[in-house]
Amino acid sequence: MFRSHTCGALRLADVNKTITLAGWVQTIRKFGSITFVDLRDRYGITQLLFAESLNEKLEANPLGREYVLQVTGIVNERSNKNTNIPTGEIELLVNDFTVLNKSITPPFTIQDDTDGGDDLRMKYRFLDLRRQAVKKNLELRYAVGRSARNYLHEQQFMDIETPFLIKSTPEGARDFVVPSRMNAGQFYALPQSPQTFKQLLMVSGYDRYYQIVKCFRDEDLRSDRQPEFTQIDCEMAFVEQEDILNMFEGLIKRIFKDVKNIDYTNAVERMSWENAMWTYGNDKPDIRFEMQLCNLKFPSHTFPSQKDISSLISGADFKVFDEAETVIAIAAPGCSEYTRKQTDELTEWVKRPQIGMKGMVYIKCNADSSFKSSVDKFYSEEKLKAIAESCKAQAGDMIFILAGAEERTRKATSELRLHLGQILGLRKIDEFKLLWVLDFPLFEYAEDDNRWVARHHPFTSPKPSDIEMMIQNNPVIENAAEYLKHPYASIKANAYDMVLNGNEIGGGSIRIFQKELQQKMFAALGMDEHEQQHKFGFLLGAFEYGAPPHGGIAFGFDRLCAILGGSESIRDFIAFPKNNSGRDVMIDAPSTIDEKQLTELEIKLNSGS
Amino acid sequence: MFRSHTCGALRLADVNKTITLAGWVQTIRKFGSITFVDLRDRYGITQLLFAESLNEKLEANPLGREYVLQVTGIVNERSNKNTNIPTGEIELLVNDFTVLNKSITPPFTIQDDTDGGDDLRMKYRFLDLRRQAVKKNLELRYAVGRSARNYLHEQQFMDIETPFLIKSTPEGARDFVVPSRMNAGQFYALPQSPQTFKQLLMVSGYDRYYQIVKCFRDEDLRSDRQPEFTQIDCEMAFVEQEDILNMFEGLIKRIFKDVKNIDYTNAVERMSWENAMWTYGNDKPDIRFEMQLCNLKFPSHTFPSQKDISSLISGADFKVFDEAETVIAIAAPGCSEYTRKQTDELTEWVKRPQIGMKGMVYIKCNADSSFKSSVDKFYSEEKLKAIAESCKAQAGDMIFILAGAEERTRKATSELRLHLGQILGLRKIDEFKLLWVLDFPLFEYAEDDNRWVARHHPFTSPKPSDIEMMIQNNPVIENAAEYLKHPYASIKANAYDMVLNGNEIGGGSIRIFQKELQQKMFAALGMDEHEQQHKFGFLLGAFEYGAPPHGGIAFGFDRLCAILGGSESIRDFIAFPKNNSGRDVMIDAPSTIDEKQLTELEIKLNSGS
Repeated sequence: MFRSHTCGALRLADVNKTITLAGWVQTIRKFGSITFVDLRDRYGITQLLFAESLNEKLEANPLGREYVLQVTGIVNERSNKNTNIPTGEIELLVNDFTVLNKSITPPFTIQDDTDGGDDLRMKYRFLDLRRQAVKKNLELRYAVGRSARNYLHEQQFMDIETPFLIKSTPEGARDFVVPSRMNAGQFYALPQSPQTFKQLLMVSGYDRYYQIVKCFRDEDLRSDRQPEFTQIDCEMAFVEQEDILNMFEGLIKRIFKDVKNIDYTNAVERMSWENAMWTYGNDKPDIRFEMQLCNLKFPSHTFPSQKDISSLISGADFKVFDEAETVIAIAAPGCSEYTRKQTDELTEWVKRPQIGMKGMVYIKCNADSSFKSSVDKFYSEEKLKAIAESCKAQAGDMIFILAGAEERTRKATSELRLHLGQILGLRKIDEFKLLWVLDFPLFEYAEDDNRWVARHHPFTSPKPSDIEMMIQNNPVIENAAEYLKHPYASIKANAYDMVLNGNEIGGGSIRIFQKELQQKMFAALGMDEHEQQHKFGFLLGAFEYGAPPHGGIAFGFDRLCAILGGSESIRDFIAFPKNNSGRDVMIDAPSTIDEKQLTELEIKLNSGS
Repeated sequence: MFRSHTCGALRLADVNKTITLAGWVQTIRKFGSITFVDLRDRYGITQLLFAESLNEKLEANPLGREYVLQVTGIVNERSNKNTNIPTGEIELLVNDFTVLNKSITPPFTIQDDTDGGDDLRMKYRFLDLRRQAVKKNLELRYAVGRSARNYLHEQQFMDIETPFLIKSTPEGARDFVVPSRMNAGQFYALPQSPQTFKQLLMVSGYDRYYQIVKCFRDEDLRSDRQPEFTQIDCEMAFVEQEDILNMFEGLIKRIFKDVKNIDYTNAVERMSWENAMWTYGNDKPDIRFEMQLCNLKFPSHTFPSQKDISSLISGADFKVFDEAETVIAIAAPGCSEYTRKQTDELTEWVKRPQIGMKGMVYIKCNADSSFKSSVDKFYSEEKLKAIAESCKAQAGDMIFILAGAEERTRKATSELRLHLGQILGLRKIDEFKLLWVLDFPLFEYAEDDNRWVARHHPFTSPKPSDIEMMIQNNPVIENAAEYLKHPYASIKANAYDMVLNGNEIGGGSIRIFQKELQQKMFAALGMDEHEQQHKFGFLLGAFEYGAPPHGGIAFGFDRLCAILGGSESIRDFIAFPKNNSGRDVMIDAPSTIDEKQLTELEIKLNSGS
């Protein structure tokens, strides 16, 4: 062993002990004939004191930043103590030292606030990983994984490995494929998730399965996606939705406790998908703050059970509202005194192409209970008051109203709400609010093909009360314009998403376990019997031999860690991430391979040969 | 929840409780008007008693093998108790039942001694996994993994995930490659191990890393190899070989304790590679029994430090020995009374093509201290006695002697030793003996290319005392015939294998951490500077920024589990294994993919288009 202690271990109680440390040179400071060095390792930093007697050796073996150093010395009480670090009361009076390895000057400083840009830090990721900020993220990731494993173990879950070289059955995202040398012309696929395998394990009787497992998706990457990502993947047999919700609420609460020391004792709130869409404009609402959407005009065919209050704005000759498919308002608390400059800035914000609105209407709910709006021409104060009441606006609030096509306007209002929440400090980084979103539609309508697609995946079960209706009806949509009237449009899924602070951190469903229902589902998605057999014959086969009722969930491990770590970017929580082009710029992958390898695989490139 | 208890839970203390169980129908037995059913789940089997009152319902809903059943009833004390199972003292007096799912007749019986052949069980792996024998294997696997994680956690190791989509740098086995859609014409590779990444983590200061991780190797498969396999992969910084041996001896001993309740208190034996080859004929000796090899004639240039005792057999005019490159003897304890039939059988055994010897000489060491051999013509009793003494044979033993070309003969004698060990019951399935094999040669000679290849891998460090010599000498072999005289032939590696009962379960090394030495190593393996930069530029780059001394080890998780489970086959310890052609016959992978997928990847098949 090159050391007797770590750089984070020494305390006052160790004074006068002879100690050996090894680590990296963080800083070097000279005071006259004395040299101070901060020595760093994974566990902390210890100050070294090189007295004058070592100057000759230091001149012969000069030190530099990031040099690897082994030192032996005696622990000494410091005169000027540093109370910011656990080792700050002592220093090591160096007797002798060895330079274990040298370093050229790093391309950026190894500090929390580094001067290195993103690209440089990705290229030298092995140096970026030395920074305390990145190390903390990986330590948190390890702690989350360990907490999850402990909880699931105590709940009798078994970690069972599923294969990585599987079969390509694309439905949704693209598969990465792997040419097989031993089976020329054939390909494996890398799993987008272990979905079918965990279901087979349920058929096999392993009634509580989990895995923390890499998954792969060949998608065009957005800034917060990775081609390979990690899931906490779980499945249970002999359960109903309620059992799963309770079990995995418990998992997340345990992680909160173990990793953040947060006692999340409240029951996790629950909300139907329809309510989430209606009151927050999206299916993963951030419920740390209110500011709910008020639908002043909403196509009632989408959400037939919601109350239509469009009379509040109609009949006023305000064309923008009259002609818009949808009009949605939100009340920003305490913003009635916003200046013209501030409202203009917000208007510009919603007009950016990413948001895509044409303008914004506002209503000031003044502290004296009077109202002032940008549409005073069209609406009397009485009308404005009625609108404000519908929006649950208080005196002192400002109401913002967007109008336009349904989906875009809903999305824009939702974005505006989050933006205002950020500006108003309502999205606190150290506040954590969980939410179950339930009762998703089973199907979504695919306009291009005039057919149904699975909202979650093809293995999700409809609500028990919808099963008979689903089996009895023909999935074909005769009249594309009226697809919403097709009975399948109203089928709800036994599916659930867990949302944390406005991010979907997990999702799952009760699965279909009846062969006939699974076949009907495949047919509804446009798969004929041949394709069903080719892609999922093994699963349909397994369902013939006593498949139990089962369901499960998968958590996005990277994202969960990022949110717990207070970051928006999953990349900061992955040791060796890829960039937006799917490249690892450090190792320079992907890259060309030898002609010999291609020949052995019996493939060739379209471009070349 | 579909159950209040599991099928393994109920005991006498539960008598008179009302209980709900769910599981699979294992057996159905009718006694007059009463029906007994054994209900099975992951946790055990519970006997159900259906009284006459349920016969009507049973007729309307007939049960069958592997049906999924939910039953409610009252726990009853059994009159004839079954002491073989924990639930054998009770039965459930069924009040009501629901058939949750039906099953067609399984293609083989779901029992320990199944009537299903290998191929059938692989195709219906989801049914094979229901068998108690297979379930025990997966439970053992989970226990081994959990034990390893706990130990490594306590030792401050961190689980850090390394990427799966990396760069192809084949050296030795072939890489599986993954075409990149976003980077047309370029490929990722799946890792054969996380080797370079774990070394980068050491450079980054994460001084104790581990991962239980899938690795991939596109090799022609032998019966006990899989294209994807799992490693317990570990690396430490600031350590010497001795530290690693101690740390991972501790890991295996902990696993023995946690999983098998074995207190392995002895220090793990250690043996140099040379001694292993000399006394056991291979580098992973089974040391549960002695029967060491006695090299009566051995080319001393291979093992220059060993004693040449060829005078014992020379000068007797026995051409077989005189003309053989190598003559090796082993003494089989207590076999002097072997019949002619038995020795003939053994002779046939060594003459099989897999062993490839031409014949076998034997010497009976009779109980009365006389000797009798198949070469009495050539050797006097005195000579035979001297040979027996060299072989440490006792009165009552039988000495077997093989002669021929060096490598084949050594291998054959080693195989014969293991075969005799098996026959004589010396390889006990419940006895576990660990061994460290040390001091491997750093290089092997590749005859075809007349160059050196790395015995372990290109990152393994030579012994510190050999480093200077390695750097100073030119790796080029001028005279192929005398390659053994090249200084590189004598360089020993700081490498180690852990052997359990004659199987290599782990191996590793102290790594090179000096850029110049790593470049010299790459050059010795025939890589020019351009190739070094292209393949390993990131590692050479990282070594410029303060790389610490480090080393590590990887355990073959599948094999470790198999040996602990008393099996020769790793396939029994993998939930969804592939067959010898690398196929998953259950899901039918690999398989053809859509033309559209090929087009998107910008590749085509050699055969088609």
